[in-house]
Amino acid sequence: MIAVKGGICAAEGFMAAATAAKIKSKRRDDMAMIFSEKPCVVAGTFTSNVVKAAPVLWDRELVDSGRPVHAAVINSGIANACTGQLGLDICKEEADATAEAFGQVISADSVLLASTGIIGLQLPIEKMKNAISEMVPKLEASEAAATAASKAIMTTDTTNKEFALEFTIGGKKVHLGGMTKGSGMIHPQMCTMICFLTTDLSITKELLQKALSENVVDTFNMISVDGDTSTNDTCVILANGAAENPIIDTEGEDYETFKTALLQVSKTLAREMAADGEGASHLFTVHVTQAKDKQEARTIARSVVSSTLTKAAIYGRDANWGRVLCAMGYSGASFDPNKVNLYFVNDIGKIEVFHQGVPVDFDEDYASEILGYQEVTALIEMHEGTEEATAWGCDLTHEYVNINADYRS
Amino acid sequence: MIAVKGGICAAEGFMAAATAAKIKSKRRDDMAMIFSEKPCVVAGTFTSNVVKAAPVLWDRELVDSGRPVHAAVINSGIANACTGQLGLDICKEEADATAEAFGQVISADSVLLASTGIIGLQLPIEKMKNAISEMVPKLEASEAAATAASKAIMTTDTTNKEFALEFTIGGKKVHLGGMTKGSGMIHPQMCTMICFLTTDLSITKELLQKALSENVVDTFNMISVDGDTSTNDTCVILANGAAENPIIDTEGEDYETFKTALLQVSKTLAREMAADGEGASHLFTVHVTQAKDKQEARTIARSVVSSTLTKAAIYGRDANWGRVLCAMGYSGASFDPNKVNLYFVNDIGKIEVFHQGVPVDFDEDYASEILGYQEVTALIEMHEGTEEATAWGCDLTHEYVNINADYRS
Repeated sequence: MIAVKGGICAAEGFMAAATAAKIKSKRRDDMAMIFSEKPCVVAGTFTSNVVKAAPVLWDRELVDSGRPVHAAVINSGIANACTGQLGLDICKEEADATAEAFGQVISADSVLLASTGIIGLQLPIEKMKNAISEMVPKLEASEAAATAASKAIMTTDTTNKEFALEFTIGGKKVHLGGMTKGSGMIHPQMCTMICFLTTDLSITKELLQKALSENVVDTFNMISVDGDTSTNDTCVILANGAAENPIIDTEGEDYETFKTALLQVSKTLAREMAADGEGASHLFTVHVTQAKDKQEARTIARSVVSSTLTKAAIYGRDANWGRVLCAMGYSGASFDPNKVNLYFVNDIGKIEVFHQGVPVDFDEDYASEILGYQEVTALIEMHEGTEEATAWGCDLTHEYVNINADYRS
Repeated sequence: MIAVKGGICAAEGFMAAATAAKIKSKRRDDMAMIFSEKPCVVAGTFTSNVVKAAPVLWDRELVDSGRPVHAAVINSGIANACTGQLGLDICKEEADATAEAFGQVISADSVLLASTGIIGLQLPIEKMKNAISEMVPKLEASEAAATAASKAIMTTDTTNKEFALEFTIGGKKVHLGGMTKGSGMIHPQMCTMICFLTTDLSITKELLQKALSENVVDTFNMISVDGDTSTNDTCVILANGAAENPIIDTEGEDYETFKTALLQVSKTLAREMAADGEGASHLFTVHVTQAKDKQEARTIARSVVSSTLTKAAIYGRDANWGRVLCAMGYSGASFDPNKVNLYFVNDIGKIEVFHQGVPVDFDEDYASEILGYQEVTALIEMHEGTEEATAWGCDLTHEYVNINADYRS
């Protein structure tokens, strides 16, 4: 299993394009398209927010229907959430315009849609129709096209996020690539903000969905930037079968190989989203080990990584471990604080700050040095079992407040 | 029912004192004492955090035991949380020192304890013993003493918080007063950080506890500063019977009168805690009306008032109502967004921003003017029933990050 270039175009048969539709009148690309001539089976997970954006409703219908998918159209700038019937009508117009731009070679009901940006504004559909017809002739199966697409879906992200792997299944080379965007309103409860994964694997829709659903629990659902679960969270994977491996239709060795690849790609992208959280100066990882069960490990890791006070302390390079204990305590998990060991650890070093229920008299200067590095992990040993979980987040900074005190202007 | 001065000393027979024990070597009072010569029945609610501070364990035992209470000793600076067996031993020493300072007129097991401040440090018990013996001769039933006590328990609070009411029960004048402190790690899940209430009412312990438990659900449990539920949340009420009303031992009219007074005192103090949240520049109130049941109203109000993104928008005077809808959506309540109306309202005016599922084309300048005022309410009409709830919080500011990036130094 090796990392390769090409992002969403790494898999055979996938093309991408991007363009500037000027949705929020910025001078950068704000629309992207993904296309596969071969029909794709598709799996998806979507936000658990009761307030679901129009494109989330559109995609969920398409994924549930079992119809093949050929294309995805994504925009940044406006989220098409809280937009009523008009928002849903605009989704239909986007898909119709896409089918038309392809000369009706593909049908409107084979087009996935995704939007990210401001809630409550209507999309400028005429500008978008123009952008869609511009993108179709620009479609390319190239690294550059994949990167352009991953940049077009950014909002407050400071870097684009793409990753791909190559591996072998049934004697055939298979690829799995993806792109994703953060970086605020990130506290996924089903799946992350917007993530598109593509693979040339041949697999049934049922197993593709099973692999994705099991995967998000330990990857995209374990990151948090600000505790706000978006209206638009979408993670979809398209599989077009171009690798020509014997179709995966049972949970044997091939399925496990694919799941391993999916986990690696998803973890890489999830971690990048956390590191690029709005205003972040630290990637903050919480690793819970020796928990009595997997769910307890996840609950505690997620609670600590989401704690406002802990995040502010990480920003201040302050080894204020009491806030970590406090966040473990209100997580909802039941455990014995007197069994807990807590460390801060990264490439600079490792320091124990809490041992079996009592504070360790640690070297504050060394702790500050460790916390001064751009990545830091709180390692929590529960001494209650053998399960573990990891959550990824970031610190709470002045810049976060700057970004969010006036996001709309 | 009229507001009166005197805070925790407004009720007949209660005395207070404060002194500087120099727990965190500051030059201000950091210890307080409350005393009633008449024995008090006591009720309490405490943090739901699995990690409970030593004084929380101490008080819970005392409240559960049903023993009468004569005094409370409270310190700021150090929370006595995550301090192991030594922390519990220090509680015992504090109570013993208090009994000794009273010449054993009261017993150590009639003394409530509370601590607030940094987690994980041990209390300097020798300094505290000296402070305790200093406070006993200083005890006074005066406005000044009550105010001094309410100031001594402050940590990052910028103002002290006390309030009292006078009302009539069974032909007797009764008083209920209280003091409380915020202002970080405030997201109570049973009760607020530290709140002491005193009353000269004569009431059974059972009804005192029932009234308090029912009261916190709609008052202290409805405030949030940062989503972090403290290890030390404590709310206790002492009733010494000095008003000589016929004892309240059934849930009749007198009990309802007392509950009304308790609600008014608690709401006033809760609201002050929210307004004085760490770094706050706005008191942010969320009022949910026409909900299908009380629990739904509470859940939605609490979710919105806790939303990091909404709090940052309030700071920026940005009527970014999409974040309010988003936080309603992920609250866990199920509702129809297409029935929701949303307004921002305060003394400056009232503006509708979302109506029955679609955005209102509102005047942004007028919205900014409303949000520029130091208090603002998000009024949410659900159109699903007749229940309502209110939550109180504050905005997320640069100053919050300043305070919490290096709280320990």
